[in-house]
Amino acid sequence: MAPAKGILERLNAGEVVIGDGGFVFALEKRGYVKAGPWTPEAATEHPEAVRQLHREFLRAGSNVMQTFTFYASDDKLENRGNKMTYTGAQINEAACDLARQVANEGDALVAGGVSQTPSYLSCKSEADVKAIFKKQLDVFTKKNVDFLIAEYFEHVEEAVWAVEVLKATGKPVAASLCIGPEGDMHGVSPAECAVRLVKAGAQIVGVNCHFDPLTCVKAVKMMKEGVEKAGLRAHYMVQPLAYHTPDCNCQGFIDLPEFPFGLEPRILTRWDMHKYAREAYNAGIRFIGGCCGFEPYHIRAVAEELAAERKIVPPGSEKHGMWGAGLEMHTKPWVRARARRDYWENLKPASGRPLCSSMSDPDSWGVTKGDADLMQQKEATSKQQLKELFDRSKSH
Amino acid sequence: MAPAKGILERLNAGEVVIGDGGFVFALEKRGYVKAGPWTPEAATEHPEAVRQLHREFLRAGSNVMQTFTFYASDDKLENRGNKMTYTGAQINEAACDLARQVANEGDALVAGGVSQTPSYLSCKSEADVKAIFKKQLDVFTKKNVDFLIAEYFEHVEEAVWAVEVLKATGKPVAASLCIGPEGDMHGVSPAECAVRLVKAGAQIVGVNCHFDPLTCVKAVKMMKEGVEKAGLRAHYMVQPLAYHTPDCNCQGFIDLPEFPFGLEPRILTRWDMHKYAREAYNAGIRFIGGCCGFEPYHIRAVAEELAAERKIVPPGSEKHGMWGAGLEMHTKPWVRARARRDYWENLKPASGRPLCSSMSDPDSWGVTKGDADLMQQKEATSKQQLKELFDRSKSH
Amino acid sequence: MAPAKGILERLNAGEVVIGDGGFVFALEKRGYVKAGPWTPEAATEHPEAVRQLHREFLRAGSNVMQTFTFYASDDKLENRGNKMTYTGAQINEAACDLARQVANEGDALVAGGVSQTPSYLSCKSEADVKAIFKKQLDVFTKKNVDFLIAEYFEHVEEAVWAVEVLKATGKPVAASLCIGPEGDMHGVSPAECAVRLVKAGAQIVGVNCHFDPLTCVKAVKMMKEGVEKAGLRAHYMVQPLAYHTPDCNCQGFIDLPEFPFGLEPRILTRWDMHKYAREAYNAGIRFIGGCCGFEPYHIRAVAEELAAERKIVPPGSEKHGMWGAGLEMHTKPWVRARARRDYWENLKPASGRPLCSSMSDPDSWGVTKGDADLMQQKEATSKQQLKELFDRSKSH
Amino acid sequence: MAPAKGILERLNAGEVVIGDGGFVFALEKRGYVKAGPWTPEAATEHPEAVRQLHREFLRAGSNVMQTFTFYASDDKLENRGNKMTYTGAQINEAACDLARQVANEGDALVAGGVSQTPSYLSCKSEADVKAIFKKQLDVFTKKNVDFLIAEYFEHVEEAVWAVEVLKATGKPVAASLCIGPEGDMHGVSPAECAVRLVKAGAQIVGVNCHFDPLTCVKAVKMMKEGVEKAGLRAHYMVQPLAYHTPDCNCQGFIDLPEFPFGLEPRILTRWDMHKYAREAYNAGIRFIGGCCGFEPYHIRAVAEELAAERKIVPPGSEKHGMWGAGLEMHTKPWVRARARRDYWENLKPASGRPLCSSMSDPDSWGVTKGDADLMQQKEATSKQQLKELFDRSKSH
Repeated sequence: MAPAKGILERLNAGEVVIGDGGFVFALEKRGYVKAGPWTPEAATEHPEAVRQLHREFLRAGSNVMQTFTFYASDDKLENRGNKMTYTGAQINEAACDLARQVANEGDALVAGGVSQTPSYLSCKSEADVKAIFKKQLDVFTKKNVDFLIAEYFEHVEEAVWAVEVLKATGKPVAASLCIGPEGDMHGVSPAECAVRLVKAGAQIVGVNCHFDPLTCVKAVKMMKEGVEKAGLRAHYMVQPLAYHTPDCNCQGFIDLPEFPFGLEPRILTRWDMHKYAREAYNAGIRFIGGCCGFEPYHIRAVAEELAAERKIVPPGSEKHGMWGAGLEMHTKPWVRARARRDYWENLKPASGRPLCSSMSDPDSWGVTKGDADLMQQKEATSKQQLKELFDRSKSH
Repeated sequence: MAPAKGILERLNAGEVVIGDGGFVFALEKRGYVKAGPWTPEAATEHPEAVRQLHREFLRAGSNVMQTFTFYASDDKLENRGNKMTYTGAQINEAACDLARQVANEGDALVAGGVSQTPSYLSCKSEADVKAIFKKQLDVFTKKNVDFLIAEYFEHVEEAVWAVEVLKATGKPVAASLCIGPEGDMHGVSPAECAVRLVKAGAQIVGVNCHFDPLTCVKAVKMMKEGVEKAGLRAHYMVQPLAYHTPDCNCQGFIDLPEFPFGLEPRILTRWDMHKYAREAYNAGIRFIGGCCGFEPYHIRAVAEELAAERKIVPPGSEKHGMWGAGLEMHTKPWVRARARRDYWENLKPASGRPLCSSMSDPDSWGVTKGDADLMQQKEATSKQQLKELFDRSKSH
Repeated sequence: MAPAKGILERLNAGEVVIGDGGFVFALEKRGYVKAGPWTPEAATEHPEAVRQLHREFLRAGSNVMQTFTFYASDDKLENRGNKMTYTGAQINEAACDLARQVANEGDALVAGGVSQTPSYLSCKSEADVKAIFKKQLDVFTKKNVDFLIAEYFEHVEEAVWAVEVLKATGKPVAASLCIGPEGDMHGVSPAECAVRLVKAGAQIVGVNCHFDPLTCVKAVKMMKEGVEKAGLRAHYMVQPLAYHTPDCNCQGFIDLPEFPFGLEPRILTRWDMHKYAREAYNAGIRFIGGCCGFEPYHIRAVAEELAAERKIVPPGSEKHGMWGAGLEMHTKPWVRARARRDYWENLKPASGRPLCSSMSDPDSWGVTKGDADLMQQKEATSKQQLKELFDRSKSH
Repeated sequence: MAPAKGILERLNAGEVVIGDGGFVFALEKRGYVKAGPWTPEAATEHPEAVRQLHREFLRAGSNVMQTFTFYASDDKLENRGNKMTYTGAQINEAACDLARQVANEGDALVAGGVSQTPSYLSCKSEADVKAIFKKQLDVFTKKNVDFLIAEYFEHVEEAVWAVEVLKATGKPVAASLCIGPEGDMHGVSPAECAVRLVKAGAQIVGVNCHFDPLTCVKAVKMMKEGVEKAGLRAHYMVQPLAYHTPDCNCQGFIDLPEFPFGLEPRILTRWDMHKYAREAYNAGIRFIGGCCGFEPYHIRAVAEELAAERKIVPPGSEKHGMWGAGLEMHTKPWVRARARRDYWENLKPASGRPLCSSMSDPDSWGVTKGDADLMQQKEATSKQQLKELFDRSKSH
C-alpha cells in the first residue's frame, strides 16, 4: 500500500517533508552494524532491530522511511571480505519490506536508496557502475518503493550516472551528495553539481552526511542559487550530520581524528536541531532530515521546530514537552525553572573534558602507510587471542 | 525459567557480572519516556521498544536485565498529574515479563528494582514508605525475579527501609545509592552508608547514577573500605553515568546547567568505558554496569575490556572490532590506520564547540522561584498554542 | 646623528628590518598610558619609562625606533577632555628626542609616526585633516627623523591624505592600515588599498594592529599581489597584534568582548612568534615588527627566528637560549628536558581556565546605548567616591 | 633614609601592606634575566632596567621594594657555569641600592631577601647552609634594609635555618614558602610549617610563587589556623603567581608542561586580581603582593580593590579608570559601554586557541633522562651554529 500523496505532490504543495536519521551510526551503537564496512546485513540478520529504529523515526515525525540499503550494492557487500549469509538481493528486499511495513503504520513514504560504489572508485566503466545500480533498482521496482534517492556521492559524475539509471523507472528521483561548500572531490562547485543533477533528471537535489547542519544548509543554498541562475527548477533536501564539525577540511568528518569512535563530544543537542530546522526552512529547503549521528529525538526536534508550519506535532511529542516543558514535573525546583525556551536556547553546554580542546586539526593526524603496517603487526597477537576467545564463546 | 546460576553464586565464585545501561535516558531519546516525570509506563504502552532495548543490552554482554520499574511506585506514578491508562501493578508486571523474556534469550538474571519515593521526601512515616515498596515487591514475588535491587537513593535511611522490605522475600538484595564521595544528602559518608546497608541485610552494595564512572568507583572504594573496617562482608556494584562530570557538586549531574537536555558533549566514548571497566575491576568491584547515558555500545565496551577475565566476548562484538579493528575494512587508508589500540587510547576528542567551555559552574546558574514563576507565565501562551496543535493532530 | 644606512637602502639590499612592539599597550601595563584615550603624554611626563621601553626593543633586535606619537595629533589630544600639562608639539618633540637617543645606542632608525585622526571621523575636510598631519610633520622635520610612517588607518582615503602630506618632506614614507583580509571600513580590498597608497607615494605598504600575526600576513600578501598585478613596486611591512584573534569580525580585536582588559589568555608565546616571523619572511615581507601586545621578548623571538637570514642575533639573546636552551641550567631534570625545539614547537598551551571558552562571538555582546546610559548612572556614585579618595591621596 | 613606619608597626596597626611583583619573570620578558639560571646579575649589568621596574611597582601601589637578590647566594651564582663579571657581594649591594633609591621616591620599605640554596639540595650541613645566608645578610646589614624576607623555600627545614640566621640582625623577619595546601616537599602541612617558622622567630609567615592566587590564599589560611591553634601569634603574607594553575600537582607550576615559556594563556587579568585581593583580605592576610607573572598593572589592581580599606589609590591610577572607566573616552560607543564593573567582573575571557585545552596534565609529560640525553645531542649542531653567529655578531 502506498500513501495517498507522493513526494512530489507534497513538495509541489509547499509542504515540509521530514526525513529520517542515520541508520548505520545508530545501529552501530545498538550493536547491529560494524563500523568500517558499514554494511546493512542487519536487515536480514536482525530485522526487529531495524524495524524498531524505523518506528522510532516515524514516531519522531519522519515522513520518509529510507530503505536500509546504504552500501548494499553487490560490489560493496563482496568487498567486505567476510562470507555473507545472505545475498545482496535478499538484503535489499528485506530492507524494502521493513520500510514499507513501518511506513504503513503512519503517513510515510518509502524511499529506495543507492549510494556510491567501490566500482566507481576503482575506475570501472560507466556501464559497469550503472549495472551495479540496476541490480538494486530491480529490487526497488519489484517492491514498488514510492521514490528513489541517490545519496552519499563524493563525485558528481557517479551521482549523475546513478540518477540516469534511477530515472528509467519513472519514479521521482532525489540526488544528494556528501559534499560541503567547497564542492565535490574533483572540485566541482555545489552550484555546478546541482545543475548537472537536475539536468540528469533529479527532481530533488541536496546534500547529506560529512558536515554539520549549518555547513550543509550553506552548501544547499549554493546549489539552489546555481539551479536558479541556470533557469532550472528543483526541490531541495538536506540530511546533515548530527555532529559539530567547524574544523573539517573538504573531506568532511571522515578526516577528523575523532572519526568514527570519538565523536561523542560533538553530538548536537535537540536545541541545536531547532536552529538547524529553522535555518533550513528559511533557506527554502523543504525536505529536511538527518544522517549519521541523528537519533530519533533529533528528528523530533526538527518536527517540533516546524510544528506551526506543518500544522502537526509528531506522535513522539507525547513524551516531550516543547522547549523542556516536561521539567515542570521535576522533583527539584531549580530544575523545574529550566522548563523554558530561553534557558535552552542560550545554554552553551560544557564538555566536562578539561584536557580536550574544542577543535581538531584534521590535517595534523597523518599516519603514514609504514606506520599503519607496523601497527597492524603489533596488534596481530592480541587480535589472534581475541579471535580465539570469540570462537570459543560461540561454541558454548 | 530462572538461569542455573544465581547472582550470589556468580559473585561468590569471583565472576564478573555485567549490568545493563540506563533505560529512562535511552528511551527518552527513542521517544518513549518523558524527561521530568521519568516514569516507565512504556512497559505497557510500547513493550516492543522496551524489549528491544533489553535485547540490545543482552547482546552487548549484560548478565542482568533490570525490570524497567524505575519510579514505578504508586505514589510516584500518581504524582505525575497525568491520568494513567495502566495501573502501577500492570506496569510493574509488564516490566517483569519483558525482562524475563529477554533474559531467557541468553544467560541473564532478572533483577526487580525499587527506587526512592516521593513519600519519603514528603516525610511520610517509615510504615507508609515501606508499604509503597511492598506493593512493587508483591509483583516481583509473583513474577519470581531472580534478585532485587534497591537503587537511586539519595538518603541512606530510605535505602535501609527498602532493604528491610526486600529482605523479607528471601531473595538476594543489592542496594545502590546515587551518591558520590561526599556521601548522602544528610552527609553520611559512603563508608557509613555501606555499613548500614550491609547490616540491614544487603549482600551487594554500591552506587549508581549522579556521577561519572571514576567518581562512582571512588565512592564504592570508600564503601568497601568502610565495610571491611567494620569487619563485615559484601559484594560491590557500580552503575555510573555515561557523562563526564568533573564539575559536579554533591547533588551530582542534576545540578549541572546542562541537565537533562544539554549533556551531549559530556557523553563518554567507548574508550572511556574501557578505562572505567578496568578501574572498577581493579577496585575489587564485580557487578559492573551503567546508568543514565549508557547505550548498548558502552556496555559492550565494558564487556570487551573484561573479555579476558570473563573468558567470553559479548555477542554484539560480532559487529565490532576490538579497539577499532573494524576500520581495517574502511575505504580510506588513513582511516584504516586508526585501527589500533594506542590511537584510541590516546585520543583527546574535541567538542567542535569553540564557544563553549570545558566545565560548568553548577552553583552559578541559580534561578529563583520568582524567576521561575515569571517564565512560566511568559511561556503560557505558546504552550497553549502547542497544546491545541497537539490535540488537533491526535484527532486526525 | 642618523645611522649610515637608511630604511630604503636596507630594504633595497634585501635586508630584513625588524620593527618594535606596541607602546600604548606595554606602557598601559606599566602604568603610563590610560586605556580609552590611549594618548602618549608619557613622553613628557615620564620620559624614563618611555626611554626604557625603547631600549628594551633595541636590545631585542629592533632596527626601528618609532616615535611614541600614536594619537598625538592636536585634535586627538584635545579630544581627551582632560587638561593637558604639555602641548602637542612638546609631546611630539619629546618623543622624537627619546627615540633618537636610544636609536643612537645601536643600529636603529628613527621613524616619525602619524595615525588616524578624529577630524577625519567627524567628517572634516581634506584640507583640515591634512593640516593636522602637517603639525606633527613639522616636528618630525625639525627633529630630522629618518623616515615616516602613516599607521593605524581604518580608511584608506585618510591614509592616502596622510601619505600625500608626508611625501612633501622628501623622506621615505611607509603606510600601514589596521585592516584584515576583508579590507578597509568602506570595503576597499587590501589589494586596492595598497595600490592607492603606492600611487600616493608610499614606498612601503602593509598592515598593523587589529588582527593576529597570521591574519595580518595574509592581508599583506593580498596587498602584494595587488601591487604586483598593477605593475607597481613597493616594499612590505607587517606589525600585527600579539593576540590570537581567530574569532574577530572585520573591526578586529576592538569588537572582541575581551578588548582591552581581558585579552591575557590570547597573548602569543615566543614560539608563536617564531612561526609568525617565518611566515612573514616567506611571504616576502621584509619590515617585520609588532603592535599592541608585543613585549620585548616577542620581538626578540622574531629576531631569533630570522638570525640566520640576518646574520646576527640580538643583544638580548645573551639572556635567552635559542628554543629554551637556558633551561639546561634548571634545577629539575624534567625541566632541563624541555630545552629543545620540538618540545616548544609542538606544545599546545592550556589556559588554566576551565570555565572559559576558546573563542568569543564579537557580535553577540552588543550593549545598546540605553544600557550604556543606565550603567553610567549606576556607577556614578562609586566613581565619585573614588575620585574623592584619589584627590585626597594626591593632597598628602 | 628609612621610612618613618616599619613593617611591624604597619601590620600591628592593621594596615594593608602591598608587596611588589615578580622580578625574574618580568625582567626575563624585558631581556635582562635568563630563564633557567634565573639569577639577578642585571642589578649590576643593567641597573636602569631594574630601577625602572621598581619604580613601576611603587607607582602601582607597592609599599615594599624587595631587593632583587633572588638566587643571589654565592653557591647559586657559581652554579651557573658562566663566568660572572661581578661578585655576589657586588650584585647584592647593587640590588640594595636600587631598592632603597626607589623606596625613597615614595612611602616604601626595603626588604632584603634570601631564597633556597643549592647547598641545601646537595645535602650540605646546617652550618654550611647558614654560612651561605650569612654572606647575603652581611650586605643587607651594611645597607641597612628595613626588614628581611626568607622566601621561595620548598623545604621548611631550610626556611627555619634561614629565619634563625636572619633573626640575628634584630630586624623584622618574614618567612614565605613556595608550597600549596599539600605542604612542603617532605609532606609537612602548611599549619605545621607555619608553627615551626613562628617558633624560629618569624613575625610574618606565608607563601609565595608556585600556585595561583586562590590556592595560595587557601594555603595561608591553613597556616593561620595552625598558628592560632598552637596559641601563637603572627602576621600573614601571600605573594602568588599571576597564572591560573588549577591543574598543578604539589610541585606547582614548575611541573606544568607550559613552564616557563608557554604560560601566557594562564596570565590573570586585572579583574582576577580584584578577586584575589578581596579573598586575601577576607582571609585576614595583610601583606598582599605577587610573584612570578605579576606585572605592575596586577599590583595596581590589588591596590585599587583595597583602596577603600587603605584610604588611598596608587599614583598609577591616574592612568587607569577604576573598573575600566577610562573606556568612557573610547572612540566606539560599544566599547564605551564596557566602562562598568559588572561587565568586567562577569567576563569569561576566551583564549583564541581552539586547538588547545583548558587544563594540562602535569604528570603525563614525563621525559626520561634517556630522552633528554638524545635530544641534547640532536640539538648540538644547531646550537653550535647559533653560538658561532652570536660570537660573530658580538665581534662587529
